[in-house]
Amino acid sequence: MKSKLIELNTIVEHDGILSVGEMKRDIPFEIQRVFYIYNVPSKNIVRANHASVNTDFFIHTVVGSVCIELFDGKNTTKFKLDKINKGVYVSKLTWIRVMDFSENAVLQVYANNTYEKCEYIKDINEYKKYILD
Amino acid sequence: MKSKLIELNTIVEHDGILSVGEMKRDIPFEIQRVFYIYNVPSKNIVRANHASVNTDFFIHTVVGSVCIELFDGKNTTKFKLDKINKGVYVSKLTWIRVMDFSENAVLQVYANNTYEKCEYIKDINEYKKYILD
Repeated sequence: MKSKLIELNTIVEHDGILSVGEMKRDIPFEIQRVFYIYNVPSKNIVRANHASVNTDFFIHTVVGSVCIELFDGKNTTKFKLDKINKGVYVSKLTWIRVMDFSENAVLQVYANNTYEKCEYIKDINEYKKYILD
Repeated sequence: MKSKLIELNTIVEHDGILSVGEMKRDIPFEIQRVFYIYNVPSKNIVRANHASVNTDFFIHTVVGSVCIELFDGKNTTKFKLDKINKGVYVSKLTWIRVMDFSENAVLQVYANNTYEKCEYIKDINEYKKYILD
C-alpha cells in the first residue's frame, strides 16, 4: 500500500505550539483543494466510502479523532487520526472509509486536484473490478 | 489595503458540514506551506507581530476565535476570525498582529512561500521605514 503516516514538524513554544507542513517536503504534492468535514452528528456515520481515480490526499484531524480505513484492492489498513500533526497520505485509487468521528472532530483533507464528481468511484464492487482490470 | 475577507463554500449535509477552498478560485495563490498555531496559553499573547516581505497568507480559525489586526503602512483593519469558513487574505508587506486567542483556538495559516526567516521584518519602525521608502 502506497498510503503512509506523515508527521508534521512541531515546535512547542512558550506562547503556543506551531505545527508546519511544507509542500513536497512534508505533504508530497501540490495542493489544489482543501476541505473540512465537521459537525458529524453520530459515531455511526461513515464518510468518504469511495475511491478517487486521479486524486491523492493528505488527511488529518485538527480537533478530535476519527478512524480511517484504507483498502488498495489487496490490503486493508486502519489508522486512528487524533493529532493535528499526524496525517495520512492516501494515494489515488485507494478505497477510503472514515468513521468513529469523536464529538467536535474536525477532519481536514488536502487534495492535489479540484473536485470532479465523475472521478469518484462510489460502488465497492465497481472499484474492485476497476482495480483488478 | 489589499487584504480582504474570503468565505469558503460550505455545504450543510445530513451527515456533517463540508467547507471547501480551491486554489486560485477561493484562496488566491498556490500553497507552499501550511501551519497551525494552538495551545496559546493566554488571551494576552500577541502572535505574528511582523510583516513578510515576499509572502501572502490566508488565515482562519478552525476552532475558536482570534482577532487579527492588519496594518499596511497607512491603514489599520481589524477582523474577528471565528468561523472555519471565514478567512482573511493578507498580502505581503502587511504588518500582522493576532491576539485574543480563545481557549482551544486553532489558527491555520496558508502561505505561498516556504519559510525564510530573513524575509520577516520584526521591528515596526523598520517596517514603517521599509514601506515608506
